[in-house]
Amino acid sequence: MDIDTLSEKIVAGDRRALSRAITLIESSRADHRDQAAQLMERLKGAGRQAIRIGLSGTPGVGKSTFIESFGKMLTGQGLRVAVLAVDPSSARSGGSILGDKTRMEELSRDPNAFIRPSPSQSHLGGVARRTREAVAVCEAAGFDVVLIETVGVGQSETVVAEMSDLFILLIAPAGGDELQGVKRGIMEIADIILINKADGDLKPAATRTCSDYSGALRLLRKRPQDPQGFPKAMMVSALERDGLQKSWEEMTALTEWRKENGHFASRREAQARYWFEQEVRQGLLAKLDTPSAREAMQSFAAKVAEGGITPTVAAQELLQGLRD
Amino acid sequence: MDIDTLSEKIVAGDRRALSRAITLIESSRADHRDQAAQLMERLKGAGRQAIRIGLSGTPGVGKSTFIESFGKMLTGQGLRVAVLAVDPSSARSGGSILGDKTRMEELSRDPNAFIRPSPSQSHLGGVARRTREAVAVCEAAGFDVVLIETVGVGQSETVVAEMSDLFILLIAPAGGDELQGVKRGIMEIADIILINKADGDLKPAATRTCSDYSGALRLLRKRPQDPQGFPKAMMVSALERDGLQKSWEEMTALTEWRKENGHFASRREAQARYWFEQEVRQGLLAKLDTPSAREAMQSFAAKVAEGGITPTVAAQELLQGLRD
Repeated sequence: MDIDTLSEKIVAGDRRALSRAITLIESSRADHRDQAAQLMERLKGAGRQAIRIGLSGTPGVGKSTFIESFGKMLTGQGLRVAVLAVDPSSARSGGSILGDKTRMEELSRDPNAFIRPSPSQSHLGGVARRTREAVAVCEAAGFDVVLIETVGVGQSETVVAEMSDLFILLIAPAGGDELQGVKRGIMEIADIILINKADGDLKPAATRTCSDYSGALRLLRKRPQDPQGFPKAMMVSALERDGLQKSWEEMTALTEWRKENGHFASRREAQARYWFEQEVRQGLLAKLDTPSAREAMQSFAAKVAEGGITPTVAAQELLQGLRD
Repeated sequence: MDIDTLSEKIVAGDRRALSRAITLIESSRADHRDQAAQLMERLKGAGRQAIRIGLSGTPGVGKSTFIESFGKMLTGQGLRVAVLAVDPSSARSGGSILGDKTRMEELSRDPNAFIRPSPSQSHLGGVARRTREAVAVCEAAGFDVVLIETVGVGQSETVVAEMSDLFILLIAPAGGDELQGVKRGIMEIADIILINKADGDLKPAATRTCSDYSGALRLLRKRPQDPQGFPKAMMVSALERDGLQKSWEEMTALTEWRKENGHFASRREAQARYWFEQEVRQGLLAKLDTPSAREAMQSFAAKVAEGGITPTVAAQELLQGLRD
């Protein structure tokens, strides 16, 4: 299928074309990369705009259950929902632990939902590019909401936040010292913190945790992209499907406010710049990603470690070798 | 003066030669960079080894007073002490706020001490390289202790830790929730946490803070490079020169243990590898640091932000332009 036809079918809502496009995006073959770049250029003219929601949470907070319940609620309202994942661990484990369709049984059978696991790549940079392009394809395909989930290891939250309009942090009820467990940097990028499992025995703990986070959020510096009351913490129960509608209302209210005040567009612009700069840097650093460069790196690194040459001179010689 | 002579004078302990070498290192002129690289190659044969101590602390913890008191104590024992600084803010403010000799009046007049402010550079990467090279020059010049201080903004602690044998975190006595203020990542790289200002009215608070940090350090995962009891928290008063000798004994005990167990050498090897890789990456990214590249970056970034081109294609075109 040529790129024009593929592009048209995606815009027409053809799911097989969508899957095929994402497979193309995830390929590391040079000709596929070229075709993918062409496709992305073609699709950006579709002019459709989804709400891109980044969702992070450590294992055990109930992310899958939340996505299942939240996604079903949205499709129940006639919205089309895509679920993508950024999982830096998928390269190591040889398969994605996220986006596993069996975790979201109902949603994965829903004709208005599309679930795609994380691409397995050796670098977070590679996962980031492919996910970012998959987001754009889903948007062109007419999805209303694109959920991008991550397990929140290392830099992956930053990566997801840089491709999302909203960033949601999902946490579990816990003891009083739990606040320390959440990295400060993550608190600072969250728009809404959802305390999940606010049901049954855990309800009192959830209430306390929610109040702790509300307090902590109030201490953060006010960001220009937030209306009064944001960022905020609230309780949900994905299991009992409680609070989900309210959380969706908060998300849409925040999005509307940001659209009206220009922050939505300026965030997307800043993100596009950011990804452009990342691509340029990765393109330059790709020179190190050849067998001969890797071999030279290792051999120089060994000499440097022995003290036979300084890091600076070793780097100069290696770079000279790459140029020749 | 040629590089051979400069090198000999440094090894012979000539302070003017030392200052001159560091000025050469800090220059960004290409011929100076080449000479500096030659000098570093020459000096690595000196075979001298100082204890490199990284020291971090937020403004107000009494870093200058600590360095003054601690440094004077060491020179009083016949040791030669160099004080260098990594200050990423110096580029912005146009001058270093650290390493200011007027802050360490006694030490700066001490013939066995050498104090050098942070090089002012636009990139932390540039400051890092220059400081790392200054450390090696001071080591070749026969200093017994090289203190590398940083104010601990952003990545600067990591930079300092990657050029130190020991990493000391200096903190002030505070209320019970202060633990949250210290980034978890910093706790994890600290070898010794010194609670300063353990004097006068603040003594009870210092005792409590010390106990809080001792508890927090016990919760961290055991690192292979630590003997029993490390990392540890202890109290000092730089003002009353109290606890300084004890802290120095802990530093030397830790260093001796690491030397005997091979961790000292392997850390230096790993650091050399790390800096080599950083230099290679920076060398590749330096292509972006020309007026024409910056102009092209800006022009493409504007198009990308407008949505006129995707980040991927813009990056491809820019990289193609750099190649031609």
